[in-house]
Amino acid sequence: MDLREYIRSIPDFPKPGILFRDITPLLSNPEAFGYAIDEFKHTFAPTRPTAILAAESRGFLFGAPLALALGAAFIPVRKPGKLPYKTRKFSYDLEYGSDSLEIHVDAVGQGSRVLLIDDLLATGGTIEACAKLAQEAGAEVVGCGFVVELSFLDGRKKLGNYPIKSLITYDGET
Amino acid sequence: MDLREYIRSIPDFPKPGILFRDITPLLSNPEAFGYAIDEFKHTFAPTRPTAILAAESRGFLFGAPLALALGAAFIPVRKPGKLPYKTRKFSYDLEYGSDSLEIHVDAVGQGSRVLLIDDLLATGGTIEACAKLAQEAGAEVVGCGFVVELSFLDGRKKLGNYPIKSLITYDGET
Repeated sequence: MDLREYIRSIPDFPKPGILFRDITPLLSNPEAFGYAIDEFKHTFAPTRPTAILAAESRGFLFGAPLALALGAAFIPVRKPGKLPYKTRKFSYDLEYGSDSLEIHVDAVGQGSRVLLIDDLLATGGTIEACAKLAQEAGAEVVGCGFVVELSFLDGRKKLGNYPIKSLITYDGET
Repeated sequence: MDLREYIRSIPDFPKPGILFRDITPLLSNPEAFGYAIDEFKHTFAPTRPTAILAAESRGFLFGAPLALALGAAFIPVRKPGKLPYKTRKFSYDLEYGSDSLEIHVDAVGQGSRVLLIDDLLATGGTIEACAKLAQEAGAEVVGCGFVVELSFLDGRKKLGNYPIKSLITYDGET
């Protein structure tokens, strides 16, 4: 199945000059959506993850079904102030300003084998933050999975030697 | 399985006097999380939904796996400015001020049988907005499912005669 057929390219979103890769056609086709989850499952089952970490909001869409498929814990990573219990925070720089993500302090720890999932790998800021949150808690990162990778933005550079699986890769604006 | 055992109650979140029902222990237990999705599946399969509508962010966690389990489209409902294609918007009143949610204009329409899913039924504002967005697009709402219902907040009053399934109900602050 060519998942690329289920991605809609939208020019000038969220701002002029950006070609946005819209995953909603994939989400609305249960065969394509199921195929994406299966691909992640088959790729990462041998890494024996005990927890799937994914950041809100679109990461939840793939991380939650994959956690169920792999029999692993689902661990939400959220923007500051959203998680109700005690949290660990990681702040990272953006082009202008900075952003932060949080995880519950009891979510993962020593002995956890963590798989990071997101819909998109662009410059890699979000997934690097997820990796740091897992590592600072004492967990081991066993891999990273993305539905769409924009390879021309070099996000992989931030991900060291983790095994990476991207279901669809765009190497430019076509 | 008593799903209540997988809910953590956190006093004074997000503000003093509120007892927050934290679903993260449920998400981190694959048996409990899978049981919740199965319960929704068995309840709503007879209503033959063609689409599952869920609002960001926590609604995504249950709506996406359920869409896969039922072989239905997953349709995200998001805050203004987040969806990249043309949208339909619904604004609703809060205690102070108002809020809005959006759906893609081509997400559902005449002939769609829509199931609304969220983690929480409190005063019902979010789920009522989802119902209006579906109806204004010409779709039929076939049911509403919630992981947690705070029955003392009377959210059901906003939901007319739709079939409703709540996996856990709290009738007070205990």
